[in-house]
Amino acid sequence: MPKISTRGIEMPASPIRKLAPLSDSAKARGLKVYHLNIGQPDVKTPEIALNAIRNIDRKILEYSPSDGNRSYREKLVRYYSRYNINVGCDDIIVTTGGSEAVLFAFMACLNPGDEIIVPEPSYANYMAFAISAGAVIRSVPSSIDKGFALPPVEEFEKLINERTRGILICNPNNPTGYLYSRSEMNKIRDLIKRYDLYLFSDEVYREFIYTGSPYVSALHLVGIEENVVLIDSVSKRYSECGIRIGTLITRNKELRKTVMKFCQARLSPPLLGQIVAEASLDVSEEYMRETYDKYLESRNFLIDSLNKIPGVYSPIPMGAFYTIASLPVDDADDFCAWCLSDFEYEGQTIFMAPASGFYITPGLGKNEVRIAYVLNKEDLANAMIVLEKALEAYSK
Amino acid sequence: MPKISTRGIEMPASPIRKLAPLSDSAKARGLKVYHLNIGQPDVKTPEIALNAIRNIDRKILEYSPSDGNRSYREKLVRYYSRYNINVGCDDIIVTTGGSEAVLFAFMACLNPGDEIIVPEPSYANYMAFAISAGAVIRSVPSSIDKGFALPPVEEFEKLINERTRGILICNPNNPTGYLYSRSEMNKIRDLIKRYDLYLFSDEVYREFIYTGSPYVSALHLVGIEENVVLIDSVSKRYSECGIRIGTLITRNKELRKTVMKFCQARLSPPLLGQIVAEASLDVSEEYMRETYDKYLESRNFLIDSLNKIPGVYSPIPMGAFYTIASLPVDDADDFCAWCLSDFEYEGQTIFMAPASGFYITPGLGKNEVRIAYVLNKEDLANAMIVLEKALEAYSK
Repeated sequence: MPKISTRGIEMPASPIRKLAPLSDSAKARGLKVYHLNIGQPDVKTPEIALNAIRNIDRKILEYSPSDGNRSYREKLVRYYSRYNINVGCDDIIVTTGGSEAVLFAFMACLNPGDEIIVPEPSYANYMAFAISAGAVIRSVPSSIDKGFALPPVEEFEKLINERTRGILICNPNNPTGYLYSRSEMNKIRDLIKRYDLYLFSDEVYREFIYTGSPYVSALHLVGIEENVVLIDSVSKRYSECGIRIGTLITRNKELRKTVMKFCQARLSPPLLGQIVAEASLDVSEEYMRETYDKYLESRNFLIDSLNKIPGVYSPIPMGAFYTIASLPVDDADDFCAWCLSDFEYEGQTIFMAPASGFYITPGLGKNEVRIAYVLNKEDLANAMIVLEKALEAYSK
Repeated sequence: MPKISTRGIEMPASPIRKLAPLSDSAKARGLKVYHLNIGQPDVKTPEIALNAIRNIDRKILEYSPSDGNRSYREKLVRYYSRYNINVGCDDIIVTTGGSEAVLFAFMACLNPGDEIIVPEPSYANYMAFAISAGAVIRSVPSSIDKGFALPPVEEFEKLINERTRGILICNPNNPTGYLYSRSEMNKIRDLIKRYDLYLFSDEVYREFIYTGSPYVSALHLVGIEENVVLIDSVSKRYSECGIRIGTLITRNKELRKTVMKFCQARLSPPLLGQIVAEASLDVSEEYMRETYDKYLESRNFLIDSLNKIPGVYSPIPMGAFYTIASLPVDDADDFCAWCLSDFEYEGQTIFMAPASGFYITPGLGKNEVRIAYVLNKEDLANAMIVLEKALEAYSK
């Protein structure tokens, strides 16, 4: 039997899915499992988006342009301008989800052995895409005690060497919910400029900022225009994760030309998803407000509930719809697995993602979990009761 | 400005798209441009498939499983059984187009520096995916004089060394239309077995075989069950290239587990495309017959027309919907560009793909073009007149 590739062996299993078999067997035992592990919003996709495909009048579902439909990109220009992100249609490349935007950014910018620096904990799949590109992720730990604020610039500088090619941030952050301040973004900008690095900035959660703090996009930063690669996606914004439509945006023309070669190789991004995404941009303010209010309410309820449970601590996430909480357990991996395999409370249990999978440094986050607050209010309330009961039972 | 990656620089521009700017400017000058360059079928997507999305009753367009919807994979099992390809639901992984299946196969099987052997000319994007994976494509030339038959086994063996990890075939072949015989497939099987290689087999055109010859799938071959990776796609079969739904099939469990890690990293294949693809499997025999008859008629007309033009030669393609033809020109790249930039006949011109982009060995195929016969009959007839006139004018 021929060998598996080294990168295939090194690829991490998804931390939000690695317990999935246990969850399946819990369901098979008749338990109601509350999914706190995955950012699949429990929000309806806008009707205007669903109607766009219900009313499709095409005869042939043909290839779209490799960089995406122009009509969609033109509407995106207007969307971004509302956030003072001033880009042209040609700066925008439509990708198959934000995932592909990350992969293509790495493929186009990083050689095997090149390094990028990421504050940890971080979105776990960045690691998978780095491995795909043969790149190395170096991490700077942020800590729950400081609410996952940007680590000091000196910590980044310690890691910068001749192989360092970029810094990757997610803002607002998955998994921590942290929102980088203007001052923090300026510090990042200065680093990028000083060492002429790429700044990969994943900003898919910009709609969900709960603090009134300003959203500072990487594309707002002056003086590093050629260095910034913005990663975006409509998945979370309009609850349409399944359509697989993202974007890669850069003002760097040479980089765009290179990314386009990867885009042409895979022919085109999904046509139907683009139709849905384009229609979604016309969604009512009321829809966005209701979604926002739901997450805000869920966040407030979740954080309040978590911090009332003895031994549990969560900082207050400023954006996105996740938090990292510390639990009064030694090994959250074991606890999360146990909840699915051995525990139940009134026919229910909870599925949480152990935070260890979001850290790059082994051993960090051992007593932490990532919780997504995407469930409806009643389910979230029940899940919190189940968590408290589980912790009581587990410690006995 | 930070540097572009080496692989980004090495990525080839798409041979079917590199003349696109010239085509755009020809259209801007008011010319009718016949697209012989791209395999975008001029066939309607089945109504049953379009209705599946018109009648969608989902409230949330959510993530599908990383390996694709089970209902779709179960229907695929029945589809493949009609071709005596006996696979189970778990052997099938749904991908974002056949493109992603190739990429993931290479990522999971090949280390940087590993080599695969491909008969050339070959589908140009294989090269792009190999570069993405850091792998090296070695090629064995097939020749127009022999109708692009499988090169002698000895030519493959000459290239096999300690870095050789697999052989890649496309059957029926894009760009040549060649169909490998049972005897040729057995020779490939023996090579695969002797050297314990992977056999990557792209079989997206199996519906379109015009000779009555048997279709021998790589998955029919006995004794190399763990070595075969089948690449498939519904794009061409049901004229739904835009939905981006393919499959990767292997009986090798360890390999599947590895491919799944890449699948999980990109979360899921497109949901809407899967709905369309699943419905397409119920298409009427009449639809498939009409499509087949159309291509058969187009093939016969095209090859007949080509071989009537002085100095033009095309073998008779046995399958798919492309042919490679040799032209009485020294440099088909120049001729194809000239057709778009300098030539017109009664307000029309033609866009062909220079075959050089499908060869790996520099210098091969210099006087050849790839022609897709996907246009309707009238357009194809006009395109042949334009080609003849263009060759007359070019030689003056």
